[in-house]
Amino acid sequence: MSRRIITLTTDFGTGSPYVAQMKGVILRIDPESAIVDITHEVAPQNIRQAALVLEEIAPRFPDATAHVCVVDPGVGTDRKIVLVQAGSQFFIAPDNGVLSRIVRSRPPAAAVALTNRDYWLHPVSSTFHGRDIMAPVAAHFCSGVPPGDFGTTVERLEMLDWPEPRTDGRQLRGSVLYVDSFGNLITNIDRDLVQSLGEPALLQVRCGGRTVRGIVRTYGEAPAGSLIALFGSGDRLEVAVVEGSAARRLGAEPDQEVIVTR
Amino acid sequence: MSRRIITLTTDFGTGSPYVAQMKGVILRIDPESAIVDITHEVAPQNIRQAALVLEEIAPRFPDATAHVCVVDPGVGTDRKIVLVQAGSQFFIAPDNGVLSRIVRSRPPAAAVALTNRDYWLHPVSSTFHGRDIMAPVAAHFCSGVPPGDFGTTVERLEMLDWPEPRTDGRQLRGSVLYVDSFGNLITNIDRDLVQSLGEPALLQVRCGGRTVRGIVRTYGEAPAGSLIALFGSGDRLEVAVVEGSAARRLGAEPDQEVIVTR
Amino acid sequence: MSRRIITLTTDFGTGSPYVAQMKGVILRIDPESAIVDITHEVAPQNIRQAALVLEEIAPRFPDATAHVCVVDPGVGTDRKIVLVQAGSQFFIAPDNGVLSRIVRSRPPAAAVALTNRDYWLHPVSSTFHGRDIMAPVAAHFCSGVPPGDFGTTVERLEMLDWPEPRTDGRQLRGSVLYVDSFGNLITNIDRDLVQSLGEPALLQVRCGGRTVRGIVRTYGEAPAGSLIALFGSGDRLEVAVVEGSAARRLGAEPDQEVIVTR
Repeated sequence: MSRRIITLTTDFGTGSPYVAQMKGVILRIDPESAIVDITHEVAPQNIRQAALVLEEIAPRFPDATAHVCVVDPGVGTDRKIVLVQAGSQFFIAPDNGVLSRIVRSRPPAAAVALTNRDYWLHPVSSTFHGRDIMAPVAAHFCSGVPPGDFGTTVERLEMLDWPEPRTDGRQLRGSVLYVDSFGNLITNIDRDLVQSLGEPALLQVRCGGRTVRGIVRTYGEAPAGSLIALFGSGDRLEVAVVEGSAARRLGAEPDQEVIVTR
Repeated sequence: MSRRIITLTTDFGTGSPYVAQMKGVILRIDPESAIVDITHEVAPQNIRQAALVLEEIAPRFPDATAHVCVVDPGVGTDRKIVLVQAGSQFFIAPDNGVLSRIVRSRPPAAAVALTNRDYWLHPVSSTFHGRDIMAPVAAHFCSGVPPGDFGTTVERLEMLDWPEPRTDGRQLRGSVLYVDSFGNLITNIDRDLVQSLGEPALLQVRCGGRTVRGIVRTYGEAPAGSLIALFGSGDRLEVAVVEGSAARRLGAEPDQEVIVTR
Repeated sequence: MSRRIITLTTDFGTGSPYVAQMKGVILRIDPESAIVDITHEVAPQNIRQAALVLEEIAPRFPDATAHVCVVDPGVGTDRKIVLVQAGSQFFIAPDNGVLSRIVRSRPPAAAVALTNRDYWLHPVSSTFHGRDIMAPVAAHFCSGVPPGDFGTTVERLEMLDWPEPRTDGRQLRGSVLYVDSFGNLITNIDRDLVQSLGEPALLQVRCGGRTVRGIVRTYGEAPAGSLIALFGSGDRLEVAVVEGSAARRLGAEPDQEVIVTR
């Protein structure tokens, strides 16, 4: 059988030994599993950011990958931990809204609350369920334990609201979803919506008090230092500075308003 | 045979190509070994911090894992490099005290100084024994070379002293061991010692001029922003700010005094 | 057959989900490939830095390793993407000079422009060819597709110029190539060149207005805090502060002049 893949997304910080503890736990149970770090730089306790990361990366991975996400400010309280199948992939995470975006595009085929203590590490800490519950469950799951063995069916998952762009046919109002590692501002406005307004090259994009005229195809179409708008690799409208940082230039942050007009 | 696991702990910085060189050396010798990064963010030359990391992560890994630790300010001098078996695990590191805590809880079954140049990379640099000695020895070891082939028996390892908490039966004085990636202050006071003083919920914890009344079970038991005390995932007393940083709030650093009273 | 190794070098930032997307793409095509991160902390768009990283790390890896490098300010323009065999290793990268140093020491045995869209991901974005072209080509290559299938032969690769040290037999003038993660200044002056000038222990090294007398063998030969000169792990002359940062002490950066005299 092929190696099963387990991915890890946390807010522990790169180089945190907490991540390494989870890897050790997984490898003790299933030495053949392949562990892939997605990111450990989710801002502490930022559930929304982690939800966006999972949405972006999951479709790229092989079928049956198990994605473990530990952004868990409610650890040790009565929040549930769940194993969810959505599309061809599996997610193990606290039920705190971090799976909101994943299950929006792919309604969950199954969701189980991890209540069966047989698959936990003992003693279980009150502060690190990533290591003591999620990691061992992921490893046992990849070793072939069926989802139903880990606990009881969950009918409804916690969902977070997301700001949606609004349009009146002449103007589009959306906002910055997140800032990527280059300082590009990734918005919640997708390509189809923009094209419903008109030819992208003829539209204007306003953000942080600045106006960009015309949406270009790629970074290299304007000189270094230019403020541009384009569709990024996730097909979302993006505001960028060529070989620079739009976040710094505009002082922009998530939720900043972005307006597209003819 | 199952893949053998090699872990890497260094002070090279995340993303340092020095780490990549070590991985290349290991994979050239043993392409089947599974390399796991523990952390590369040990503060430069901070042997004590690395010793604490090894103590925390090693017990989580499968038996016969080889842990390589390169925090090595004495590289190229006459300090020894050793391969040590402690419990069911193996450690390859400079003999500079970085194994002090590992061998305290698990007396070493065997310790060998790496003197057999047959297993080194040649030419050997004077400045990077992680790449030229420790990495190739780890790979050969994982390929099945017995420990005794790498050199001569060492009778006594370098040991560092660690501050121990003191108690008079009514009061406990300890200190901060390290600050984790969330800014939580992890102390050298363990759960058993605290419980010998009284019921944790009824005790007081003083640190950085602030007093916390009552030790709670987990972060989610107090509102965001609260200063709390609890037992962390390593069963050590920990001072934390809920969804915040206790290190920043208290201006606290390692060795800061922490006092527990009834 | 043994696992084929794919390495990743990018300017995406550690913990960027862009890296994770590339890993997902690779693992979907070739679940058995072993992916090794070299670094994702190349400064944004810094082609020269990436070229130096590839030169340093490639020789350490097993034969037939595929090194993917995504430092690609021209993404989506008409710059080529190439698969190059140099020595026993393979490189997949934009043809923007990032392979300049690799092919200097090892003339390329073959170079192919990646024009065959059969091996690309579709739809292809205009902004992320690392994910949509380089990652899938690397995975197909590691699965056994011969280089010639990916496109058409390239006769000449883009080359960047590098400052070379100059000597008049009594004095050597070179410069800082890069600053490593410890703050050591790595120069473009190699050991052989210095030795042609005289016995290293008797030479003087000038950098940033400071003079170091005598080149030592390793860091531990001088007290903590000393400014020293030595040959680093790549056999290049290096200026360092023992257990400190020479970059900070001297305010030095890449291209800073370094002079060696008798």
